Amino acid sequence: MMLARQLARLLGQDRVTTDAVALATHATDKWFASHPPEVVVFAESTDDVSRLMKFATRHRIPVTPRGAGVGYVGGCVPMRGGVALSLARMNRIREISSADAVAVVQPGVITGVLQAAARKRRLFYPPDPASLAECSLGGNIATNAGGPRCLKYGVTRHYVLGLEVVLADGRVLRTGGRTHKNKTGFDLIGMFVGSEGLLGVVTEATLRLLPLPPARATLSASFRTFRQAADAVQVIFAAGFLPSALEIADAFTLAAAGEHLGRRLAPPGSAHLLVDLDGQPASVKSEVKSLAALLAKLKAIRPQTALGEAACEELWSLRRAFSQSLKATGLVKLNEDIVVPRGRLTDLAAFAEKLRKKHGYPIACFGHAGDGNIHVNIMAAGYHTDRAVQKNVGRALDELFAQVLAWGGVITGEHGIGLAKARWWPDAASPVSRAVHAALKTALDPLGILNPGKFV
Amino acid sequence: MMLARQLARLLGQDRVTTDAVALATHATDKWFASHPPEVVVFAESTDDVSRLMKFATRHRIPVTPRGAGVGYVGGCVPMRGGVALSLARMNRIREISSADAVAVVQPGVITGVLQAAARKRRLFYPPDPASLAECSLGGNIATNAGGPRCLKYGVTRHYVLGLEVVLADGRVLRTGGRTHKNKTGFDLIGMFVGSEGLLGVVTEATLRLLPLPPARATLSASFRTFRQAADAVQVIFAAGFLPSALEIADAFTLAAAGEHLGRRLAPPGSAHLLVDLDGQPASVKSEVKSLAALLAKLKAIRPQTALGEAACEELWSLRRAFSQSLKATGLVKLNEDIVVPRGRLTDLAAFAEKLRKKHGYPIACFGHAGDGNIHVNIMAAGYHTDRAVQKNVGRALDELFAQVLAWGGVITGEHGIGLAKARWWPDAASPVSRAVHAALKTALDPLGILNPGKFV
Repeated sequence: MMLARQLARLLGQDRVTTDAVALATHATDKWFASHPPEVVVFAESTDDVSRLMKFATRHRIPVTPRGAGVGYVGGCVPMRGGVALSLARMNRIREISSADAVAVVQPGVITGVLQAAARKRRLFYPPDPASLAECSLGGNIATNAGGPRCLKYGVTRHYVLGLEVVLADGRVLRTGGRTHKNKTGFDLIGMFVGSEGLLGVVTEATLRLLPLPPARATLSASFRTFRQAADAVQVIFAAGFLPSALEIADAFTLAAAGEHLGRRLAPPGSAHLLVDLDGQPASVKSEVKSLAALLAKLKAIRPQTALGEAACEELWSLRRAFSQSLKATGLVKLNEDIVVPRGRLTDLAAFAEKLRKKHGYPIACFGHAGDGNIHVNIMAAGYHTDRAVQKNVGRALDELFAQVLAWGGVITGEHGIGLAKARWWPDAASPVSRAVHAALKTALDPLGILNPGKFV
Repeated sequence: MMLARQLARLLGQDRVTTDAVALATHATDKWFASHPPEVVVFAESTDDVSRLMKFATRHRIPVTPRGAGVGYVGGCVPMRGGVALSLARMNRIREISSADAVAVVQPGVITGVLQAAARKRRLFYPPDPASLAECSLGGNIATNAGGPRCLKYGVTRHYVLGLEVVLADGRVLRTGGRTHKNKTGFDLIGMFVGSEGLLGVVTEATLRLLPLPPARATLSASFRTFRQAADAVQVIFAAGFLPSALEIADAFTLAAAGEHLGRRLAPPGSAHLLVDLDGQPASVKSEVKSLAALLAKLKAIRPQTALGEAACEELWSLRRAFSQSLKATGLVKLNEDIVVPRGRLTDLAAFAEKLRKKHGYPIACFGHAGDGNIHVNIMAAGYHTDRAVQKNVGRALDELFAQVLAWGGVITGEHGIGLAKARWWPDAASPVSRAVHAALKTALDPLGILNPGKFV
């Protein structure tokens, strides 16, 4: 209570709360871990954040920055209590410039809101995490968020041109600018993007916008086997296509979607591909035709094409329902966003089948086939209540991650390490890499007050 | 001599030289500064580099890593003597994988050699610095090299998936991997890419490859005024085009090209645009037609289009001759690679004209209009011999950089800070930013032995 009173004096009563509901809301994200903060602070300005961090440095108080709280790895869970720092009220789009093709935003802006505002000006902010209707740009920056369109357009990092960051000691760093190219000094922006709140608090970002592609097409096709679908992925690239999205789904996922959406809507076959193209209208039209012809040769079942936003989204409704469909099975869905080298897609599916046979849990694989970033969902009944299940799933995950790393893959492509992957962090990063992480953390947050209790 | 003998014992006689020609060659790059090393070491393996750095740490000896030595800012000039560490002999392409769409390379591989090798497999390594026939991938990584194609495809950073880096104390860090997406920990790759040899020595890189676009088109057009050309740039983006390159040139540059290449080859008008498109054959064909129609409406003079590599390169021969044409004027060409927000192109040209009137030096502006990265060349007779000229040019540059920064632009888009921009580093980076740079440098190179005497 003492802390709350001090902070209220420092920042104003309206920005500080110890309300039980607020503490509970700010104790967790979309993952399972939970730990309440002592106080929630709702910053309304860079100055608020700077003053808070100066105070926290003086008194060595843990501060865990928080975007919209929709992460999948417990990254914003305040493990050491202290302050949960919400940036949700800093939600203004300061500027969208067509001439310079940039947006200047506060961290609390919802990703989908920026996308819609840009679209109205015929501009395009590509990163499209599944949670874009609720996640914030600050959270996207903290996690270097991806999404299906990353395949062609790259991740959040590729769109951050400038940052304002409050450092652990309250100093305000401005780095980068509003130009699309910049080689001034070290890549400080890259250091903060994806650092999961461990190195600084982003209070403003200047984002790169692209011209809005005037047209879009989607191609949907099923295959008799997962291998055929994975082979089709290779053929699409070999023909010189770089689709704006290229998604795959396995038999279990399709079956769950069939249950959930009704058999009529679920595609046939044991694997499914969704390919998106965007660009000039005539180009997109002719390219989707070529692609359809290509897939027909590869024995695609029931290929369908769509032109235009509404028709494309209809084909995508299946994909967008996968997570919900899997949850509707009643099993606990443990989503691991591993990445394998693109050539290992079929090996991954075979390995998942091996794990299923060995451990007895169904495994649903779907996701971003183009960049090998597959959501491997272990479907475990009773996970939350049964210790034995937790132990078994842990063993299955050990084997999965060991195999993925042995292939030259990685244990997380989008969600980050947070708490969920902390157990495998020593497998995923060498001792030298962990030493360099620790050196960077010490250089920027010597007291260790920013988001403590995490992987560094 | 003592040092050379010690190193010869450590690494083998054939990897160490104090030959006068070698010392002179390794004293400079394409910029004016020069300072000889005491010894040149030609590393042939990661182990060589690691042993050298351990030795250098023990004896506090400066080590300045060096790629092909074709930088424009004196970045690899060994200002404190010691060891010039050449990576030129580590020039093997270890692997090109079509299935995973990656290349694994040593740092001494020439950029153009990798591009050609990838192209044979119908794969594409986009970064295309002007020096690609002689520059090395290690140098590209150290400087985060760009080129015309960055507009659509991004800079070197966007293609580095994994790195092996020898740290200042000789430890070998492996970070990243062979996946196209990765969210494991901090972005260590980003920290090393573009760090100008100040934080570590890259000894291997895993690079992302794209499918090779099967077709290419180029459109060339002149305009009566620079403003019309700059306006055309905006119209092209507004129509939803993201060209693979979009280059502009001003009247002085065109006149120099006319002198050098013969009037017949130089385009009419006072400004010139070159637009490149790539993709599927039918798309490229229809898009270049739409673009030509668009530019015709904007009063483009003598628009020409080309389809296919050979025809496109013919239109590009003008652009590729700009630097040579400007040098052929007999004036000293002082190339500054500033970047302005895209909406400031016309303002930049007007400001250059103001500077010309005030200081009396012609200023040639050409370059990457799409991302605002314009090479502003101050053309100064007698620069190398006349102190007064040097002083005047310095003043003109002070004014240029101050204006660019005031617009939200940056003083370097591709070349880096090195020695050439060190004077303006304090203007370009705030005290907090410089303090963060220093903290990172100290964290990774506490003795300051890597490329000392530079901007951090």
